[in-house]
Amino acid sequence: MAKKIRVGILGATGYAAAELMRILLRHPGTEVTALGALPEECGPLKDIYPEFTGRLDLDVRPHDAESLAKACDLVFCALPHAVSFKYVPGLLDAGLKVIDFSADYRLKRPGVYQEWYKVKPDEANLAHAVYGLPELYRDQIPGARLIANPGCYPTGVILGLAPLVNKGLIRPDQIIVSSASGTSGAGRAVKRNFLFCEVNEGFAAYAPAGHRHQPEMEEQLSRIGRVDVRLHFQPHLAPMDRGILSTMFAWPTRDLAGDELLKLYHSFYAKEPFVVVRDAPPSTKHVVGTNYVQVCPLVAQGKVVVVSAIDNLTKGAAGQAVQNMNLVCGFDETTALL
Amino acid sequence: MAKKIRVGILGATGYAAAELMRILLRHPGTEVTALGALPEECGPLKDIYPEFTGRLDLDVRPHDAESLAKACDLVFCALPHAVSFKYVPGLLDAGLKVIDFSADYRLKRPGVYQEWYKVKPDEANLAHAVYGLPELYRDQIPGARLIANPGCYPTGVILGLAPLVNKGLIRPDQIIVSSASGTSGAGRAVKRNFLFCEVNEGFAAYAPAGHRHQPEMEEQLSRIGRVDVRLHFQPHLAPMDRGILSTMFAWPTRDLAGDELLKLYHSFYAKEPFVVVRDAPPSTKHVVGTNYVQVCPLVAQGKVVVVSAIDNLTKGAAGQAVQNMNLVCGFDETTALL
Amino acid sequence: MAKKIRVGILGATGYAAAELMRILLRHPGTEVTALGALPEECGPLKDIYPEFTGRLDLDVRPHDAESLAKACDLVFCALPHAVSFKYVPGLLDAGLKVIDFSADYRLKRPGVYQEWYKVKPDEANLAHAVYGLPELYRDQIPGARLIANPGCYPTGVILGLAPLVNKGLIRPDQIIVSSASGTSGAGRAVKRNFLFCEVNEGFAAYAPAGHRHQPEMEEQLSRIGRVDVRLHFQPHLAPMDRGILSTMFAWPTRDLAGDELLKLYHSFYAKEPFVVVRDAPPSTKHVVGTNYVQVCPLVAQGKVVVVSAIDNLTKGAAGQAVQNMNLVCGFDETTALL
Amino acid sequence: MAKKIRVGILGATGYAAAELMRILLRHPGTEVTALGALPEECGPLKDIYPEFTGRLDLDVRPHDAESLAKACDLVFCALPHAVSFKYVPGLLDAGLKVIDFSADYRLKRPGVYQEWYKVKPDEANLAHAVYGLPELYRDQIPGARLIANPGCYPTGVILGLAPLVNKGLIRPDQIIVSSASGTSGAGRAVKRNFLFCEVNEGFAAYAPAGHRHQPEMEEQLSRIGRVDVRLHFQPHLAPMDRGILSTMFAWPTRDLAGDELLKLYHSFYAKEPFVVVRDAPPSTKHVVGTNYVQVCPLVAQGKVVVVSAIDNLTKGAAGQAVQNMNLVCGFDETTALL
Repeated sequence: MAKKIRVGILGATGYAAAELMRILLRHPGTEVTALGALPEECGPLKDIYPEFTGRLDLDVRPHDAESLAKACDLVFCALPHAVSFKYVPGLLDAGLKVIDFSADYRLKRPGVYQEWYKVKPDEANLAHAVYGLPELYRDQIPGARLIANPGCYPTGVILGLAPLVNKGLIRPDQIIVSSASGTSGAGRAVKRNFLFCEVNEGFAAYAPAGHRHQPEMEEQLSRIGRVDVRLHFQPHLAPMDRGILSTMFAWPTRDLAGDELLKLYHSFYAKEPFVVVRDAPPSTKHVVGTNYVQVCPLVAQGKVVVVSAIDNLTKGAAGQAVQNMNLVCGFDETTALL
Repeated sequence: MAKKIRVGILGATGYAAAELMRILLRHPGTEVTALGALPEECGPLKDIYPEFTGRLDLDVRPHDAESLAKACDLVFCALPHAVSFKYVPGLLDAGLKVIDFSADYRLKRPGVYQEWYKVKPDEANLAHAVYGLPELYRDQIPGARLIANPGCYPTGVILGLAPLVNKGLIRPDQIIVSSASGTSGAGRAVKRNFLFCEVNEGFAAYAPAGHRHQPEMEEQLSRIGRVDVRLHFQPHLAPMDRGILSTMFAWPTRDLAGDELLKLYHSFYAKEPFVVVRDAPPSTKHVVGTNYVQVCPLVAQGKVVVVSAIDNLTKGAAGQAVQNMNLVCGFDETTALL
Repeated sequence: MAKKIRVGILGATGYAAAELMRILLRHPGTEVTALGALPEECGPLKDIYPEFTGRLDLDVRPHDAESLAKACDLVFCALPHAVSFKYVPGLLDAGLKVIDFSADYRLKRPGVYQEWYKVKPDEANLAHAVYGLPELYRDQIPGARLIANPGCYPTGVILGLAPLVNKGLIRPDQIIVSSASGTSGAGRAVKRNFLFCEVNEGFAAYAPAGHRHQPEMEEQLSRIGRVDVRLHFQPHLAPMDRGILSTMFAWPTRDLAGDELLKLYHSFYAKEPFVVVRDAPPSTKHVVGTNYVQVCPLVAQGKVVVVSAIDNLTKGAAGQAVQNMNLVCGFDETTALL
Repeated sequence: MAKKIRVGILGATGYAAAELMRILLRHPGTEVTALGALPEECGPLKDIYPEFTGRLDLDVRPHDAESLAKACDLVFCALPHAVSFKYVPGLLDAGLKVIDFSADYRLKRPGVYQEWYKVKPDEANLAHAVYGLPELYRDQIPGARLIANPGCYPTGVILGLAPLVNKGLIRPDQIIVSSASGTSGAGRAVKRNFLFCEVNEGFAAYAPAGHRHQPEMEEQLSRIGRVDVRLHFQPHLAPMDRGILSTMFAWPTRDLAGDELLKLYHSFYAKEPFVVVRDAPPSTKHVVGTNYVQVCPLVAQGKVVVVSAIDNLTKGAAGQAVQNMNLVCGFDETTALL
């Protein structure tokens, strides 16, 4: 058997990292060799995530670039934004391939990053980072040293709207996106408002003034549409572990029939292994635990309405990261993801 | 002590009826004397809803107008649409006051009812029915013989938008409403798609082509705004028992500051016992089990965004019905509802 | 109208306190006049619990005995164990009646308290404290200055087993209790293991070596049975907000028929307003949001099996506290609790 | 590549069948070629389970033994008890290997089956059926033509108690088992008591007089212990999709230390790929979506307490069935299950 790719994970205590481990345990071509976190978060993995007892016998340790370079060929960096960019340059310098889960290398224009994140980005590496949405950048991913793994909301929204903006079928300046996310999207940070009894049996809107995933959606959709796309993004928190449903409202630029729209989507995504086009709105339940995105485009009430569903931890984070790794490392794109 | 109002409930096996019983058990001025349902649904209440064992010792029976007229002064009719209008005329003829939960007496224009419900309404009684949203029709309710209790979605949406359309502050023809409801909104009918394992851990959009509550919202908002209001209404199903959150997006007709908007809402609802105006978006968790609606109006991303939260079974059904009953019967409006 | 009882709440930021406020807002004879908490927890109540916006316009403040004595007639002390006994003596000295939610005054034998809680109790006040389970101590409660409000698990278990141990119908040294509690039982403390994504969709056993509520159950049941009762208590955490179901297994001391058992329970609890005896096992859903306990005694598989259900925040905490307050203050025992 | 095993599924519309498809989609050595159900349940799989849209493009059809024999090498029979035994003989006669999910071939003594299921079993095939718990019957499974896949509760309970009864460390006639299951255990039948709003936020005991899985546990444990094992089994329904936690209480036959017990379990299960022994009680959350069983044996409160956790649809049904198939067909036992 070919030598396995040795994989490290930084930020190993978060939910996306745990999902990543779950997927990698099924991957025949990789071996997880290092788990890193801040010193106060470290310990045997089985104490941090008891589900890995007897399955992945590793300690989470305060790794640095040097120790990772010895143990790994590729590192998944599942750190928060503005933390990631402190580690990524060292990892790249040590010759590691990096797939980064944070927002630090997603926004191509440094000024936009600085506006939304209030710090300057790592411009040197931003320049060569590839936005890891295989459906749009499949050609560029294999050769990349640094992949910016897309945000969870952007993955569902960009894939939901891409055919429409690409074909100029909706007004690009008047799109409304109402999304609902499971609570794992908030991460594993210990905050009162994410206690079970605060979230359970409740549904809430948040960040009405603007969410950091919005410029990411706009940048990518503008590129696809070769036009300045502006959207109004309103996220909600739903009482469930996983899943994002995005309902998108747009004004058509010409008369559109539902059948035509459906045909367009089927054609646009014909060769995509993880995009499923449907003629009825999906539930997040139909994609949870998978790397699939389900997209339903409709003409309704005089508008174009698109509903997309993903699992925020899989296609919205760890699954997509493995999809990227598969492309980077020359595995079949769907390995460990079916 | 004054003689108690004797109350009957038709459609006593549904969730709204159960919520109604819960509220009425706390009401010092009423007594539940009759529970009616279709023959196949009948039996001791404690077998149908074990929570009432030892609390409300009644049988659910196949009542008719005559037997109800003997046992009751007022009847809550919690039947489905197009069933209600078969019972209501007889109840009125028998001299009973009726508070109807269905859509049968809500839409003032018979043609609109027929378009959405595919049957002809009971025009004779529609003509004198009062739309039971006390915040808008408090003066007309006390004298009414027939109250059309508002729909659950309309209650949250109308109260959320009323100040804006009344003052002409938003474009009336371009309003987008994205709502999420707890599953009790679907009723207690035994259908596969409402099984626990189908709903739990899932979030889904439904009825994209149009929902029957939309003309109700439009009719009432048009009246309040003295202009033709059209909105795009998209409901979702959330994995929780109760609660509706409505997020409403509208285009302002002039420059608006957030403070001004907040002040307007505080003033508009200053005397309302059940409307709470907030400056941060509510969660349904903040209103569940109560008759309150929480409304948060914001200026955000160049638009007006209003988020409202209600309990669909309380302010969206049984609580509002008791509020109406209190007005009809001369009780303090908040009796049993605080 | 008679002057209202002025009520204060210490530990006002916890879930039991919030439930208490909800109940007291419905109580015609009381007025909440003071809310106390540690300085770092203080602020407007509506920021801590947005559900009280516009309903209870108070600030949570770092109250002491002196300020409470001025503002209140009676104080509910909803503080953790070993904190409560620092405040209660001062409150009593200031002439206030106290209903204490903690374990500090529940265990009559100081040594048992010290064994389980690792600190010495307040023996002086322990001596006159009355265990506030009205079903057992209704006569002593009205005259008490200090009520030890029972624990949540003990309430359901004691009421479930009382008739059996009282009549000597089960072996007192061989009782197994397997209970499951909703997550609000863990309080509002911000701990990782109570985050939504840790609790949701999971069911777990905890504290197998022994839980602090066990000696409380044993002390009360021993008293009722006039024999040394020992039980094995195993709690579990269930993915729901509220409710405790206790399933109790015991060996009968003689041949027992199911009917006889049911008759015994009906007779034992005949005059109890909040105990509902049933012939089928209840769900916590049948009592959630109420002050009722549902008890189902069965002869099954050669044993006596009793299943009891309560809402841990209501009959298991705040509801029972109000029941006690009603008795102490001369209100009807069920006021605000139906 | 070797020719793939062609697999059929009868009872394809149930939850266990859906889980089976999910697992088989990851299996490199099998291909699903036929899905069968009653005529009224048939249709395109994507309409019955939208999650398989674009992933498994098959119709569910009313297959018989003949059509299955043409299309398949092996059939998973996921039918209800007393239905399965009508199909299995024909499948075996047609030369198919069968893995049966029902209880029809689990109980070796026909009289016991008849007592609990009220019909006579298929004695001819019962005689050669192998109980498919690989941890106990690994040697017999590869040569079997008919595997009786164990029940969900029995899997967790038998694996939890096997080391104890095998070594004679607990009294065999006095074992109490209190289990809680997620709602998928009730299947996909459309019944009122499994509606979302009936199950959610509730925890309930059921079947106190005796559950059909009890004789299965007793038969297997008696064999392991070479003694007549009797247990008291009490199941509960928990508000979650999946997972079974069993808490087992037993009396030790001699002084036992916790360490000794833990060492025994580690040794007993040393070579098992799917049994994880832990020193702290698991949550179902730690095994959901996996084929693992987590077992924690403890000495507590003078008794032996064992807590085991499985996913009822995976190790409790479809995962274990694939584990059996792997053994039957000569695949690595863990294929598609890690």
